[in-house]
Amino acid sequence: MAKKKENSIERFMKDREELNAIVMKYAGLPIKRFYSLDTQVFRKGALPTSTKELLGLVASFVQRCDDCVKYHLGRCHEEGLSTKEVEEALAIGLIVGGSITVPALRRALKAWDELVDG
Amino acid sequence: MAKKKENSIERFMKDREELNAIVMKYAGLPIKRFYSLDTQVFRKGALPTSTKELLGLVASFVQRCDDCVKYHLGRCHEEGLSTKEVEEALAIGLIVGGSITVPALRRALKAWDELVDG
Amino acid sequence: MAKKKENSIERFMKDREELNAIVMKYAGLPIKRFYSLDTQVFRKGALPTSTKELLGLVASFVQRCDDCVKYHLGRCHEEGLSTKEVEEALAIGLIVGGSITVPALRRALKAWDELVDG
Amino acid sequence: MAKKKENSIERFMKDREELNAIVMKYAGLPIKRFYSLDTQVFRKGALPTSTKELLGLVASFVQRCDDCVKYHLGRCHEEGLSTKEVEEALAIGLIVGGSITVPALRRALKAWDELVDG
Amino acid sequence: MAKKKENSIERFMKDREELNAIVMKYAGLPIKRFYSLDTQVFRKGALPTSTKELLGLVASFVQRCDDCVKYHLGRCHEEGLSTKEVEEALAIGLIVGGSITVPALRRALKAWDELVDG
Amino acid sequence: MAKKKENSIERFMKDREELNAIVMKYAGLPIKRFYSLDTQVFRKGALPTSTKELLGLVASFVQRCDDCVKYHLGRCHEEGLSTKEVEEALAIGLIVGGSITVPALRRALKAWDELVDG
Repeated sequence: MAKKKENSIERFMKDREELNAIVMKYAGLPIKRFYSLDTQVFRKGALPTSTKELLGLVASFVQRCDDCVKYHLGRCHEEGLSTKEVEEALAIGLIVGGSITVPALRRALKAWDELVDG
Repeated sequence: MAKKKENSIERFMKDREELNAIVMKYAGLPIKRFYSLDTQVFRKGALPTSTKELLGLVASFVQRCDDCVKYHLGRCHEEGLSTKEVEEALAIGLIVGGSITVPALRRALKAWDELVDG
Repeated sequence: MAKKKENSIERFMKDREELNAIVMKYAGLPIKRFYSLDTQVFRKGALPTSTKELLGLVASFVQRCDDCVKYHLGRCHEEGLSTKEVEEALAIGLIVGGSITVPALRRALKAWDELVDG
Repeated sequence: MAKKKENSIERFMKDREELNAIVMKYAGLPIKRFYSLDTQVFRKGALPTSTKELLGLVASFVQRCDDCVKYHLGRCHEEGLSTKEVEEALAIGLIVGGSITVPALRRALKAWDELVDG
Repeated sequence: MAKKKENSIERFMKDREELNAIVMKYAGLPIKRFYSLDTQVFRKGALPTSTKELLGLVASFVQRCDDCVKYHLGRCHEEGLSTKEVEEALAIGLIVGGSITVPALRRALKAWDELVDG
Repeated sequence: MAKKKENSIERFMKDREELNAIVMKYAGLPIKRFYSLDTQVFRKGALPTSTKELLGLVASFVQRCDDCVKYHLGRCHEEGLSTKEVEEALAIGLIVGGSITVPALRRALKAWDELVDG
C-alpha cells in the first residue's frame, strides 16, 4: 500500500523536485522572481493560508492543470483542511468550469483519497 | 456620483436581470436546473458563504469572465469581505493566471472601487 | 423596432464586413487560405449544413467567443433550425463549459430572440 | 489484438468507472446533481441523440479534453455515426480550435480507429 | 480623423493608465512585483526587444486578450516592426489558435491600421 | 543514455509520425489543407524561420499544449536558436500565462535539456 502511494502523490512530488532543478539550471532572473512571487502570494495575510490554498486549488482546477491541482491538494492536506471543505471547493470549480473539468475532478479526488487514506 | 455608479455595477445588475429573463423565456429543464445548481453550490456548508464567494471570484477571474467577476465582487461586498481579503484573492488569480488577466484585474478593481466608495 | 434590430445582429454583420475588409487589406496567403478553409469546412458533406452550424455554434460557445456565436446563430436561423434545437445545443454547451459560459448564454439568447422576433 | 484494444478504449472505460466510484464516495449533492444533469442534457429531444453526441464531442475537442473526447467517440460509435460524420465534426473542431488541437485530433482518430477496427 | 484615432488606440492608452492607477491604489506587494516583472521580461536580452514584443503579441493573441493585443501592437509600432512582420506573427497566431481568434484578428488589424495610418 | 533520449524527444517524434499516419487515413480535404497551411505559415517571410518557431513555441506554451511545445523546441534546436533565446521566450510565456504554465515549463526545459545534451 505504501508502494501504491509512492506511485502517485509521493512520486509526483519527487518528479516535481527533479524537474524544478532543471528549471533552475536554465532560469534567468524573471523565471526565478516568478517562482519566488508564486510562493509569496500564498503566505498568510488578511486571508489565512488555508483559504489561499483553496483559492489556488480552484484556480488551477478550472483550468484543468492536474499537476497544480495535486500540489495544492497536498498543501490543503498539510493545512488541515477537511475532506468536506475540499469537496465543496471542487464542487464550485465543477459548476464554474463545467463537465470538461470532470476528468480533472476524478484525478483530484483520487489524489485526495490517497492523501487522507495514506 | 450616484449616476456614475449607475453606469457600472448597478447598470450591470439591471442588464443581467433583463438578460436572465430572456434566458428563462427559452430555457428547457437542463438550463433551469443548472441555474438552480449554480445558486446551491455557493450556499453555506463546511465552508462559509464568504469563502465560497472568494472561490467563485477567483475561478471566474482566471478565466477572465468580466461579468462573472463583477457578480462575485458584488456578492463579496454583501458578505462583508474586506478590501484586503478581496485584493489577496485577486493577487492569487493574477499569479495563477498571468499577465493576460491584467485587463480583468483593472476592471475588477475599478468595480470594487465603486462598490466601496459608492 | 427595426431600428432596435439594427443595433445588434444587423449592426454586428455590418461591422464584421468592414473589419473583414481591413483583414483582407493586410492578409498574406496563409490568412486568406484560412478564411477559405473556414468556409469550406461548413459545407454540406456526410453531415448536413444545419448540423455543421450547430457544431460551429457550440464549439464557439464553450470558448465564449461572442462574435463567433452571433455569426453561427445567424447561420442557424438561415438554415431553418428551430428555437428548441438551438436551445438544446446551447444547453449542451452550458453543461460542458460551466457557469463561466452563462454571460455568453445570455447574449446568445438575446441575439436569437431578435432573430426570431425581428 | 483484443489485448491491444484493452490498452486504450476498453481500459479507459474501466479506469473511468473506478475513478467515478471515488468521485461518488466523496460527492455532495451539487456534484451528484451535476452528474445527473450531464446525462440528462444528452437525451433525445428536438435534436436526436446522435447529433447531441457530436455536439458533446466537438465541445470537448476544442477544449482539448482527451478523456471527454474518448467518451463521446465511444457514444458516437454506439449511436451508429459513420466515420465520415465523425471526421467532419472533428474537422470543424480543428478549424475552430486551431493547430493546438492537432495532438487531440491524433489521439481522437487513433481511438476511433480502434473502435471501428476493434 | 485625429478624433477618430482618439476613440481607439489613444483612448485605450488613456483608459489603461487610469485603470492602472486604481490597481496601484489597492495593490499589495505581490501585484506590484508582478507588474514590475511584466516590464522586466520584455527588456532586451539574448533576444531583441522587437522579437520579445512579437512574442508578447502572439501569446496574448491566441488567448484572445484584446487589451493585451492592442498594447503589444502599440509597442511593436514603437519598436519599428513592419506591417509584414506583424501580419506574419498574427498569421501564426491564427493557425495556432483557430477561427475563434478571427474576431481578435479583425480588431488587431483595425488597431494596426490606425497606428500606421494615424 | 542514448536509450534515455529515445524515451522522450525521439520517441515523441516517432509516435507523432505514427499518429499522423492515422490522421491522414481518415482526413478529408479540410484537415489536409489545414496541415499544409500549418507548414506554410512557418516558412521564411519578412520574419526569419527561427523567429517564427519561437512564436509557435510561445503560442503553444501559453495554451499548455505539451506536444506542440516539444515539436517547436525540436524545430528551435534545428534552427540553431541558443538556450538563452529559448529560455527568454519561455519566460515571456510564463509571465503572460501565469503559474498554471509552470508544469509545462518544467516539461519544456526537460525536453530542451535532452536536445542540447543529447
